[in-house]
Amino acid sequence: MTVLDIPPDSLFGLENLPYGVFQPRGSAPRVGVRVGDSVVDLAAELGDAVFAESTLNPFMAQGRGRWTEVRQQVTELVRGDITDTAVFAVDEVTMHLPVAVADYVDFYASENHATNLGRLFRPDSAPLMPNWKHLPVGYHGRSSTVIVSGTDVVRPCGQRKTPETDSPVFGPSRRLDIEAEMGFIVGVPTQLGQTIAPDRFAEHVFGVVVVNDWSARDIQAWEYVPLGPFLGKSFATSISPWVVPLDALEAARIDTPAQDPEPLPYLRGQEKWGLDIDLEVEWNGHVVSRPPYSQMYWSPAQMLAHITINGATASTGDLFASGTVSGREKNQRGAFIELTWGGKEPVKVGNHTRTFVEDGDEISISATAPGTNGTRIGFGEVRTRILPATADGGQEE
Amino acid sequence: MTVLDIPPDSLFGLENLPYGVFQPRGSAPRVGVRVGDSVVDLAAELGDAVFAESTLNPFMAQGRGRWTEVRQQVTELVRGDITDTAVFAVDEVTMHLPVAVADYVDFYASENHATNLGRLFRPDSAPLMPNWKHLPVGYHGRSSTVIVSGTDVVRPCGQRKTPETDSPVFGPSRRLDIEAEMGFIVGVPTQLGQTIAPDRFAEHVFGVVVVNDWSARDIQAWEYVPLGPFLGKSFATSISPWVVPLDALEAARIDTPAQDPEPLPYLRGQEKWGLDIDLEVEWNGHVVSRPPYSQMYWSPAQMLAHITINGATASTGDLFASGTVSGREKNQRGAFIELTWGGKEPVKVGNHTRTFVEDGDEISISATAPGTNGTRIGFGEVRTRILPATADGGQEE
Repeated sequence: MTVLDIPPDSLFGLENLPYGVFQPRGSAPRVGVRVGDSVVDLAAELGDAVFAESTLNPFMAQGRGRWTEVRQQVTELVRGDITDTAVFAVDEVTMHLPVAVADYVDFYASENHATNLGRLFRPDSAPLMPNWKHLPVGYHGRSSTVIVSGTDVVRPCGQRKTPETDSPVFGPSRRLDIEAEMGFIVGVPTQLGQTIAPDRFAEHVFGVVVVNDWSARDIQAWEYVPLGPFLGKSFATSISPWVVPLDALEAARIDTPAQDPEPLPYLRGQEKWGLDIDLEVEWNGHVVSRPPYSQMYWSPAQMLAHITINGATASTGDLFASGTVSGREKNQRGAFIELTWGGKEPVKVGNHTRTFVEDGDEISISATAPGTNGTRIGFGEVRTRILPATADGGQEE
Repeated sequence: MTVLDIPPDSLFGLENLPYGVFQPRGSAPRVGVRVGDSVVDLAAELGDAVFAESTLNPFMAQGRGRWTEVRQQVTELVRGDITDTAVFAVDEVTMHLPVAVADYVDFYASENHATNLGRLFRPDSAPLMPNWKHLPVGYHGRSSTVIVSGTDVVRPCGQRKTPETDSPVFGPSRRLDIEAEMGFIVGVPTQLGQTIAPDRFAEHVFGVVVVNDWSARDIQAWEYVPLGPFLGKSFATSISPWVVPLDALEAARIDTPAQDPEPLPYLRGQEKWGLDIDLEVEWNGHVVSRPPYSQMYWSPAQMLAHITINGATASTGDLFASGTVSGREKNQRGAFIELTWGGKEPVKVGNHTRTFVEDGDEISISATAPGTNGTRIGFGEVRTRILPATADGGQEE
């Protein structure tokens, strides 16, 4: 038997206990909990087949009562003795995409980000659209290209057009960008026609991950009017492997910034679902930005209420992301198009400068939040390396 | 044993043989083929467990070689004697959603429709955006709300705002509309980073359905700038239950209209994938429009090439729809916002007039195409009834 050694300043202490899908060498993927620098095999320790699955979906579908029960069991378990064969070093396992993603929605919930993007994409009109403070603006993304941290991303090819040319040209994106976001994962589904009021958020949402919503700005700028982003976003969305349960975020819950005008009744709730999460963006190992989630205008509870207000189904495995988290200060911006102001103001990355992401670059976005008992909890990181576009420009299968 | 009786003018003769998922009373859903007014139980007749599944996905994943082989087997089967217990009357079975939908993409491939919508939504600017003739404009929709013909749709609630008011109001949509489209279903997936050239279309696409992309125009108009349609579309997308295999469409393949300017190389192919499909829209039993698919500017092969050109994964069960099919003539328009010019020109529906869809209305969209040997084949119909918005305006779960 083993007693888990949890370093006192660990971001993965007893107050956190995030879930993921891990694979020890020579064995099958299964559900584990991260404690300190270890992963505990839940199927082995709790003897429930739901944890022998290769995604969290079956467990997430069991609902809040069961989530709370398992969290208590895991807490007792890791305080005591654990079977040796049920404990793995986090460095020695492969982490998989934790959920089978159903529908993926991306929001645009940071006022700073929406204002910056408006200025950059539409310099001749008001940066915030008239609808922006009345509803959380969002759109559907591509579920099948949600990938886990550690998966390389090949630079996408596509059409781009500058104002100087008459016609678009085809080739690798020249303005490859990140968006530092937080993502929310639905556990308990609804039927077609049901809605989820903001105060029912915790009944449906299982947990939270870090998201890097990769964006090819040149492809996006040419394609996005009038139906929104498509190929500029659909090549990859990276998420962190550990899903932090809502129960771990009690100490991080805060009010959103004041919302003026007051939202319509379906977007109002009594519960606080602003979140005091600090993000950090590393570019080739150098911190270039620290976006504060606390400044996000719309809460995730409002986002989910909005998604379902027309009766649209919520499914186990739905992922909805916040949109880029950008603070008021320049060094709090969560996308490089903002940080470098459209590429005009390069940033220092170690001994180099950068505007957009170059081949071979590695981006890591991590996040932490206050935990209970004065602790701090971690979401881990989403880390991705960019590979060069394929030589044939992706034109042949 | 039974010899199938196929009426000589049937749209479901030997040249068609579409696949669907049917459920006889008191039994489980399974895969069948429609022949005349009968459904043949493939699991029972061919003895392959892939047809005992409740979706077409496992069969679709087997690839074109297998699709051709099964089509030959089915053709021989229905020409001969069939076990009595493997034949059901189409009126006596329940049809289910034929596929588990992975990603859903909706295009905007009719020049007439895009021009009409541009005039209606953006009267002060050029109706076609500069990108429209360079790429098939599209966006991701909500997969979980793709529903089968016969499923009622509840009128959605949401925010709408008219130019006359300062703030949006909440309530049931007042401009509920249809979009008559054709939808294409992917069978053979790709890996992240692969692309599908236009001439590889038939290696990946299994078959074709009729689509009604329900649209709440007032919700859409208020929300869609800058990230595209969201709640105005995500409440429901209805599809027909029978998937017509590409092999049945050989005689329907035609050139698209001339494309000027010439598309970029990745959108060019040698194969003809324009389709001579005639759609018909019935409103409470009265034909109000006959949209011609033959006029669609972009082919489905170009759509799939575009979806994947950035390396995005194609999955078994992906559905991509053409966008509203609208011809040059007024009575060929596939959306009521066009047919009634934004509600200003009501149409006659039997003894009544209509602008947008009212509670209790029933819409049916059907389609036919030339089959081989001088025959005509049918896609069946997608039929949907609209129920009133829920009394609480959808504000409570």
